Amino acid sequence: MSETIIAVDCMGGDYAPEEIVKGCVLAYRELGLRSYLVGDETAIRKILKALGEEESEHLQIVHAGDAIGMHEPPSVVLRRKDSSLYVAGLLVREGKADGLVSAGNTGAVLTVGKFIVGSIEEMERPTIGVALPNPYGKTVLLDVGANVDCKPKHLLQFAIAGHTYAEEVLNIRNPRVGILSIGEEEGKGNELVKETYPLLKASGLNFLGNAEGRDIYSGNFDVIVCDGFVGNVILKASESLGMAVVQMIKEEVKKSIVARIGALLMMPALNNFKKKADFSEYGGIPLLGAKKPVIITHGRANARAIKNAIKVANEFLAHRFNERLSQNLLRFSPQGVKT
Amino acid sequence: MSETIIAVDCMGGDYAPEEIVKGCVLAYRELGLRSYLVGDETAIRKILKALGEEESEHLQIVHAGDAIGMHEPPSVVLRRKDSSLYVAGLLVREGKADGLVSAGNTGAVLTVGKFIVGSIEEMERPTIGVALPNPYGKTVLLDVGANVDCKPKHLLQFAIAGHTYAEEVLNIRNPRVGILSIGEEEGKGNELVKETYPLLKASGLNFLGNAEGRDIYSGNFDVIVCDGFVGNVILKASESLGMAVVQMIKEEVKKSIVARIGALLMMPALNNFKKKADFSEYGGIPLLGAKKPVIITHGRANARAIKNAIKVANEFLAHRFNERLSQNLLRFSPQGVKT
Repeated sequence: MSETIIAVDCMGGDYAPEEIVKGCVLAYRELGLRSYLVGDETAIRKILKALGEEESEHLQIVHAGDAIGMHEPPSVVLRRKDSSLYVAGLLVREGKADGLVSAGNTGAVLTVGKFIVGSIEEMERPTIGVALPNPYGKTVLLDVGANVDCKPKHLLQFAIAGHTYAEEVLNIRNPRVGILSIGEEEGKGNELVKETYPLLKASGLNFLGNAEGRDIYSGNFDVIVCDGFVGNVILKASESLGMAVVQMIKEEVKKSIVARIGALLMMPALNNFKKKADFSEYGGIPLLGAKKPVIITHGRANARAIKNAIKVANEFLAHRFNERLSQNLLRFSPQGVKT
Repeated sequence: MSETIIAVDCMGGDYAPEEIVKGCVLAYRELGLRSYLVGDETAIRKILKALGEEESEHLQIVHAGDAIGMHEPPSVVLRRKDSSLYVAGLLVREGKADGLVSAGNTGAVLTVGKFIVGSIEEMERPTIGVALPNPYGKTVLLDVGANVDCKPKHLLQFAIAGHTYAEEVLNIRNPRVGILSIGEEEGKGNELVKETYPLLKASGLNFLGNAEGRDIYSGNFDVIVCDGFVGNVILKASESLGMAVVQMIKEEVKKSIVARIGALLMMPALNNFKKKADFSEYGGIPLLGAKKPVIITHGRANARAIKNAIKVANEFLAHRFNERLSQNLLRFSPQGVKT
């Protein structure tokens, strides 16, 4: 049984509260991990009962009468102190919980992460990074939307956070770091890239230079750093391309009975692939640099995704991620990152 | 037989000169389109002969003794006046050819397009746009790499060029235009998006507001405008994601004999899909705003891609694309785009 306990926002996400509560139950049953179930007490109690579970020290209900909608402006969360997200954030801030998981409004979760949970001293701007699959492993792309209009020093911090994530959580030794640009050679790219390049080169990170768009899925880099605007549109475009490809292939397959049979025979192989590519398996996107693990899952997160997010939060704790990140920020950014 | 003639850089691209010359021959045989074959005369003549063709008014060889390598700095082309790319550009500039096709060094082709062919008066910065497939048709994404660090007025010009491309070449009536951002609502995005939004809103274009990364392949927009840095990384990431997905599925399929049989049965359907997604079918990326059609194909262009690029160049001419673009630049940008 874990010592730690994660605050889970049970009211955020497309399938809240049912799938979220179920995810907490799975995390306890399968992995022995503890959660605060934050949200409408009556609803949560009912779902627990339907699952044959009841409140316990492993699954503790914390009532919150309000919930932030998926399309509300993120900043409202700071005024909505009865919202499940705010209450969950407060549990972390006050040291009662050891981490936060939410499938809710991404902007609002980021806001709670930055302003309620807070960030470690050495990190000026916490960043969200996603581990994308490639044929040989994973590549951490960051920032994917927490920070737009970045300065070079921010990208350096993101790179250090990505390095730490790759090394501590993904077990990649001496991760190969690149900066996303539109040409391989030094000197290619926009102003931000050109100004950040020398900082990365001097940092002591295993910096390979410019990465191109194609390197995101090539396996040539372990960490690729970019502005949050760029990372976000790439992430969303990738997801949408995947869905469009599946739909276009389905349309073609529908036209032929032979192709339909072929698709049936391929199904187990396709499902294995799907599992590799499925965000539910990854357990969400961590906010790197927050004082405690904050894991943002996809709005469409199901119980399995929530279970995995709770698992990831615990892995960050077990790996003492923040201690390593603080050390790395001092080590790879000797002039001090806040200057 | 066409009146027009396109200058084709026969020495640029991974499969030059064989596939390029073959593409010119296909364009003539299948579509009756004429080309200048620019490059090493002896080599071109030999390839023509092997294909059972000889020089004619339809396939005119223009000797150029030099060729720009795929990884040379783009600007060298302006000094390398014997290079096939420079000579081809000059044929257009001097009015001898009606358009330019090259599979060579993209940056060098852009340089020739901008500085040798030149741009129409109303367009401050020519832009490259690509028509990406979605389940319902195509979406023009631009700029995809000709212009980094753009200003709002440039994005407005790109939007007008994209509108014109969608309407004149893709036959989309009153194209739905969006600006790529990281949230749907007005006011979301980076500084560039926030400053460009009101210009687009006031332009008279059919502007739907912010598009998100997922909209690139959703079919919700006909034209999506962004900075060339962003567009380029998205384009390359998409291509690489497609290849990574195929490779990962292949690995899974290999593991099972049943899945292998399934894959065989699905092959015709998959090939139909592949054809839809294959860049060779699209005939390259046009440089919109150049005085004459300049079509940049993928470095890996084969003969079919070159044939299609020659076809696209002729379509731009047949649709009087530049006249329409000039009119649209004045119509949708009443204060004048160069101010």
